[in-house]
Amino acid sequence: MDVRIVEVGPRDGLQNEKTTIPTQEKANFIGVLLDAGLREIEATSFVSPKWVPQLADAAELWPMLPEGGTYSALVPNTKGLERAMEAGVSRIAVFTAASDEFTKNNINMTVDQSLAGFRDVVDIFRASTGKNGFIRAYVSTAFECPYAGKIDPGKVVKVVGRLLELGVNEISIGDTIGVASPAEVRQLTKILLEETAAKMLALHFHDTHGMAIANVDAALELGIRSFDSSAAGLGGCPYAPGAAGNLATDDLVYFLERQGIATGVDRAKLARASLPILSALGRAPSAKSQQAQLASDA
Amino acid sequence: MDVRIVEVGPRDGLQNEKTTIPTQEKANFIGVLLDAGLREIEATSFVSPKWVPQLADAAELWPMLPEGGTYSALVPNTKGLERAMEAGVSRIAVFTAASDEFTKNNINMTVDQSLAGFRDVVDIFRASTGKNGFIRAYVSTAFECPYAGKIDPGKVVKVVGRLLELGVNEISIGDTIGVASPAEVRQLTKILLEETAAKMLALHFHDTHGMAIANVDAALELGIRSFDSSAAGLGGCPYAPGAAGNLATDDLVYFLERQGIATGVDRAKLARASLPILSALGRAPSAKSQQAQLASDA
Repeated sequence: MDVRIVEVGPRDGLQNEKTTIPTQEKANFIGVLLDAGLREIEATSFVSPKWVPQLADAAELWPMLPEGGTYSALVPNTKGLERAMEAGVSRIAVFTAASDEFTKNNINMTVDQSLAGFRDVVDIFRASTGKNGFIRAYVSTAFECPYAGKIDPGKVVKVVGRLLELGVNEISIGDTIGVASPAEVRQLTKILLEETAAKMLALHFHDTHGMAIANVDAALELGIRSFDSSAAGLGGCPYAPGAAGNLATDDLVYFLERQGIATGVDRAKLARASLPILSALGRAPSAKSQQAQLASDA
Repeated sequence: MDVRIVEVGPRDGLQNEKTTIPTQEKANFIGVLLDAGLREIEATSFVSPKWVPQLADAAELWPMLPEGGTYSALVPNTKGLERAMEAGVSRIAVFTAASDEFTKNNINMTVDQSLAGFRDVVDIFRASTGKNGFIRAYVSTAFECPYAGKIDPGKVVKVVGRLLELGVNEISIGDTIGVASPAEVRQLTKILLEETAAKMLALHFHDTHGMAIANVDAALELGIRSFDSSAAGLGGCPYAPGAAGNLATDDLVYFLERQGIATGVDRAKLARASLPILSALGRAPSAKSQQAQLASDA
């Protein structure tokens, strides 16, 4: 069984961090992730530096990315797309949510308005890259919204349907605030698999309450084969400061390998890969499998 | 659906801690756990103070336990049993493993020798307490042993069979070093459920690699209804210093409630219950759901 890991640490893991990480250190981080065996890495975001100062160096970082990886970058709009295309980005990610309250708070648009905005992004990108371009779409707050509460799966189905019509290559379904448990994951996954093939979907969990691996296991049992994660669980939760961040790639790799699914990732290298960034952020490793790996290496 | 939580923090969570916790603080800890809604608490161990200095105060602690809880104590042998019975203990727990290498290292006996030793413990206890007495048996290293590696499920079945013959009331199957993933839990649980009823079994996970909730979910789906956990995930892992400890009761309660299973536990009270002990041990909260709860309360 082949499972894809999409490493989102350099983008999703860092975007809310206040301590500015130097561009060279980001490139080094991506280099050691690559060396640990990760292949798909979301490297940065061509978002306005005003909104995400941490990723203001996207255009500088891109040419520094080491050879051998498959890199993507988030683009919020046509302006970001232009900057990304100038840098030579051939895999982009666009961002919406299942909840208007969330998109209004984050990008000052309704979900429909954000979807309408994607039309131009997709067209311009396809016109330039043709079949070589890859478009991922994030659907945030697919289970619960910090402003609107629990989300009806029907809303997610509707947004996914619109994104499929737009012709994206993949849709990443996000539990943005990390609250869902396996029963909800099973429910939503089953409904989505009635609408589209498993290969069109990725699941993106945050580990705020320690449910992420259980949720991956539930989705994997239903046929999902792509999961997003962040080295060391970088990312935090803007809605619960001090809480855990993204599903840690360390835990995901441990889980998959222990389930008998080869990942090609060297766990010892991975455990060390995030140490310089953690140190720069003033954090101790908190991903459990990373802690265990570092302890057994000591 | 009713799920039992057996809180093992005061015993399994503290037994390896070098910093001595005063008896009154242990009693207070148990009091706040009770107040948070936990009902079954393994309070201490009547083990030789030489082996577990932290729990040398078992006889002093027992009469200080607040009313309203169902308390148990670990007893390693007839000597411990005598002390426990003098203190008025009516629920005991005995301890063995699925691996000779583990019991030899821990209690200087083979598994068979430990089982033979239980005969007297069970007989003396039953003669004294009759049907009112409750005996739990722990089977450690049910998935993997730190000395012998992976454990054949057949070995666990054999030990469980012997314990059932001895007439224990419940068997807690332990992933002592916290390495198992859901596939292994499903495999072993299915095999055990061919031998005995689900109500005879509890599962006891450590969260060394962040797999514990996924393992609970897997076992729950197969019909297991009793799980051990430790407030704040107290316990550590003697085989990987610095690694995570027992499954955190905080995460377990979050998981169960989010799955729609009422636990009667107040998550906010639970999150605060372990703070004095964590502080005494010089640790910050590391259980994810506890961190999230404390963040949202702040």
